[in-house]
Amino acid sequence: MVGSAPSPETSNAPMASFSTADHLTEALEAYANPVNARVGEITRAAIKHLYAFAEEVGLTREEWFAGIGFLTAVGQMCDEQRQEFILMSDTLGFSMLIEMINQDAAEGTTDPTVFGPFHIADAAIKEMGESIVIDDQGGSPLTLSGTVRNLDGEPIEGAMLDVWQNAANGLYDVQDPDQTPMNMRGRFITAADGKFSYQTVRPIAYSVPFDGPVGAMLTANGRHAWRPAHTHMVVSADGYKPITTHLFDQESEYLDSDAVFGVRESLIVDMSQGVVNYDFVLEPN
Amino acid sequence: MVGSAPSPETSNAPMASFSTADHLTEALEAYANPVNARVGEITRAAIKHLYAFAEEVGLTREEWFAGIGFLTAVGQMCDEQRQEFILMSDTLGFSMLIEMINQDAAEGTTDPTVFGPFHIADAAIKEMGESIVIDDQGGSPLTLSGTVRNLDGEPIEGAMLDVWQNAANGLYDVQDPDQTPMNMRGRFITAADGKFSYQTVRPIAYSVPFDGPVGAMLTANGRHAWRPAHTHMVVSADGYKPITTHLFDQESEYLDSDAVFGVRESLIVDMSQGVVNYDFVLEPN
Repeated sequence: MVGSAPSPETSNAPMASFSTADHLTEALEAYANPVNARVGEITRAAIKHLYAFAEEVGLTREEWFAGIGFLTAVGQMCDEQRQEFILMSDTLGFSMLIEMINQDAAEGTTDPTVFGPFHIADAAIKEMGESIVIDDQGGSPLTLSGTVRNLDGEPIEGAMLDVWQNAANGLYDVQDPDQTPMNMRGRFITAADGKFSYQTVRPIAYSVPFDGPVGAMLTANGRHAWRPAHTHMVVSADGYKPITTHLFDQESEYLDSDAVFGVRESLIVDMSQGVVNYDFVLEPN
Repeated sequence: MVGSAPSPETSNAPMASFSTADHLTEALEAYANPVNARVGEITRAAIKHLYAFAEEVGLTREEWFAGIGFLTAVGQMCDEQRQEFILMSDTLGFSMLIEMINQDAAEGTTDPTVFGPFHIADAAIKEMGESIVIDDQGGSPLTLSGTVRNLDGEPIEGAMLDVWQNAANGLYDVQDPDQTPMNMRGRFITAADGKFSYQTVRPIAYSVPFDGPVGAMLTANGRHAWRPAHTHMVVSADGYKPITTHLFDQESEYLDSDAVFGVRESLIVDMSQGVVNYDFVLEPN
């Protein structure tokens, strides 16, 4: 019954017993006629799961408001150099999930992992065997080589390895004003034998940005912000699905607690001898 | 099997068949030792529902990136005057859900609805019968009166009605540099009879802010941004749960399509005669 007495001027309608399930139905109906059908599908699913989340934890008004403040701070931390929402996605393991959902690789294909925020398009195309080190900052020399193959074991001609990693000081060029732009980056294209080889230095474990709201989220959750030492590559070829992946140093710390959940056992290699031989296997489109 | 041939230098570990369910388990375990237990509980639930959302819709990398861009734009739209994340929460019906979860009112209590972004704390305490109109801008005069009662029908002494609404031009004072600050706001405290009464003008339907990313989201989903005409109040009293609610004008457009899902049938009243009598019923703490 309504929470108000009848009065001469108005009679209030009886209060419907309007449940949160009814409310969800009403919201989904309001989003049922989208201009863009896929946006509508995604928005309705977001509403459904968002509501389920709030009901499961019994989100209080204060917690809702704290969440609004958190998301606002994440958005306001973003600029040309810093993408705090991607960092949030990464540290929740959501970016890795998106990679898994989308790669959906056939058995035998190289495992994918996260792309990360440090890629730059159009790095220089280098000769096989060349080094990606522009600024010599010491570090342990490392040769990375192998073959790009298909699922039948046949070499792929014209495959491109787009590679990048941090320098011996633990920083990517884009994080470090003292590095020459495009230091530790390069692209290599395989010949008929599918083979690749390039010179680099052993990568260094590093912390993802920790001075923003995502750092505070990690701290409240008792998590650190470190990633185990790794070198990045996107391996692609016409007619094949590209693979975004890393190779991890098996002697690195944090292999069991990567801040962004990117480690796969198949991607851990022995870098201690200064030479790594690793084959990448692509799946046809 | 691993996507790489054995090589003299390294032997790659076999690729575990690592499912998205395994990935979820790993992420939940990483968040299982929080410093703040409640933050951990909320974060783990958020991870679980976020993953379920992405899997259900098969979120593509491009859609993920568009989502990152959307959230970033929402965050960057926020400033002292504008809270685009609250607007997003409101227009997804999430704010109303939070209100419902938290109010969880006993039968007979006045229905709650959304708080909205236009409240200002510490409005002037006015005499019963006084007007909240500071700037006379025309509009249809309206007297709002009634009794604040408990669930047994007994009047509540010392109950406070904190009321606010838009002016006859459709704008709240905080949106309108031409209005005197605190126009259309006031607080009223009941005497032993629990009765209240104040003068205002009939509220006007208006659009929530539509020029930002949330407006684009509404447009893509075929939704408008209008709210039916309403006047706001928070009704509170010592020993009772406060109620955040509105009264809606039954002749207003958009009662069936409120942009923020705030309408409840019990809150729709006849404002056409210039007098509304409505009793608010509070539940003990």
